[in-house]
Amino acid sequence: MYDVVIIGAGLAGISAGIYAASRGKKVLIIEKNQVGGLIGKVSTVTHYAGILPGETGETFAERMKQQAESAGVEILKADVKKVNLTAEIKEVFSDEGIFETRKVILANGTSPRRLEIPGEDVLWGKGMGMNAAKDGESYRGKHIYVVGGADGAVKEALYLAKLASEVTIIHFEDSLGCIAEFREKVKQMPNISLRLHTRLHGVYGTECVQSLELADEHTGAIDTIEDPGCGIFVYAGTVPNTELYTELHLKDGFIPVNEKMETELPGVYAAGDIRVKQVRQVATAVADGTIAAIQASK
Amino acid sequence: MYDVVIIGAGLAGISAGIYAASRGKKVLIIEKNQVGGLIGKVSTVTHYAGILPGETGETFAERMKQQAESAGVEILKADVKKVNLTAEIKEVFSDEGIFETRKVILANGTSPRRLEIPGEDVLWGKGMGMNAAKDGESYRGKHIYVVGGADGAVKEALYLAKLASEVTIIHFEDSLGCIAEFREKVKQMPNISLRLHTRLHGVYGTECVQSLELADEHTGAIDTIEDPGCGIFVYAGTVPNTELYTELHLKDGFIPVNEKMETELPGVYAAGDIRVKQVRQVATAVADGTIAAIQASK
Repeated sequence: MYDVVIIGAGLAGISAGIYAASRGKKVLIIEKNQVGGLIGKVSTVTHYAGILPGETGETFAERMKQQAESAGVEILKADVKKVNLTAEIKEVFSDEGIFETRKVILANGTSPRRLEIPGEDVLWGKGMGMNAAKDGESYRGKHIYVVGGADGAVKEALYLAKLASEVTIIHFEDSLGCIAEFREKVKQMPNISLRLHTRLHGVYGTECVQSLELADEHTGAIDTIEDPGCGIFVYAGTVPNTELYTELHLKDGFIPVNEKMETELPGVYAAGDIRVKQVRQVATAVADGTIAAIQASK
Repeated sequence: MYDVVIIGAGLAGISAGIYAASRGKKVLIIEKNQVGGLIGKVSTVTHYAGILPGETGETFAERMKQQAESAGVEILKADVKKVNLTAEIKEVFSDEGIFETRKVILANGTSPRRLEIPGEDVLWGKGMGMNAAKDGESYRGKHIYVVGGADGAVKEALYLAKLASEVTIIHFEDSLGCIAEFREKVKQMPNISLRLHTRLHGVYGTECVQSLELADEHTGAIDTIEDPGCGIFVYAGTVPNTELYTELHLKDGFIPVNEKMETELPGVYAAGDIRVKQVRQVATAVADGTIAAIQASK
């Protein structure tokens, strides 16, 4: 029997685990992928108070993992298959066992959104992927396409431009949706070009990308580009990982909470990107986890 | 004319400055004391996701300062004397000049609460003080009294116990009000003793503490202790620094905000310990600053 089980070892989950442990609670974090969550996959961590100069997502995630472990937090690699959140003693069913707990913190965040276009399933991981920090090196000297125009997309485009011969940002709106700092940096990179009001419409190839189709949002015209061996990095937003939480009423797929991070169910908290919120940043994920754990430990 | 003026360079203010600058805003932080705020004075920073092992308040504050400066944030050492928050163009009057701005973020936190007991004014800074990290060394091998039983007090008592011959924690309640982690550590330190249900009632001396009086909360009995040259470190809570903000309706001295950190006045935000909130931690101060700056930059 645990005092607190946390689903997800991203920043919200890690912060929650550290705080719950400091309150003397028996705490377990369950994570099916890598400790650190999506931040572990970004090329650089920016703006969060406390990062080290030039900190990568990988080094930051590793520091988070070490900090949690030295705080005495147990982290289990397992895939949660089902939850029972309504009863007083909650149950978390995973492929590594069933765990009973008095409190649950749902902190399993979001997953990258797929484009659902022709060829995506065939080429995902074979020329079309999303981890610039890990896969960027394989496209050194080649042409890289980045799909998306928000902060995450443009930040990775800036990173990839140091490796690629040429980077093209494909964005469906008429201007980039990123912060001024990144927009200025894009202007200063001679090998980044923009394809605005444009969507990636299809990708073709078997073992690598051979060609891609771009659709103009204004005219509907389709432009086919032959570019064998190019890389396509997709940052087209994220979707919340809430499919297991059928006991909760969701809002656009996200979990509503109050300022204590309490959901509508007693003893059930949500923290980080998975909850309804205004600002999704490292800082707000960490704060959510802090608040949820402090409240859950009372 | 600034886009954003931030009052206070504690964690909330620093985080706000970094985010506002990244949004391309012309931003000024005004701080009358040290960059870093109260956290700069703690012996160790604990539990915040991203700290380095063994990180002190001083090293953490220094890293924050460097991060803000490398983000292009202007930090001015000045004392704010008056504000005009109601007009569309806000004015901040300081001893270093008057600043006009479209948006203001109030992030000047809290100050340590004084005990208001006999002798305090005479001995403050001469045996009775509050910066363990800075002043603790002067009391090596001596008897140190720590006033307070919450997290901040007990954490500093643990730090001071490594220097002092003996540490006595004076706390008015019947048990310590700190987290389990610190309570366990206190038990393991043989030279820390507790004086519970006890208040510091008076201090006597001229150039250093000669004696102190302790009052029992249960019986009212006064115990006089002769302890020439001892140190008294006071962590008796904090009070919000809101005396200038007469244009706002305060709640118990703190500033109410919504989840966007907006106060009741358009263009005026509050972030960190100065606002009404449930959880006051490094993580929540940083997140508040992040949210306030992102909203103020829209």
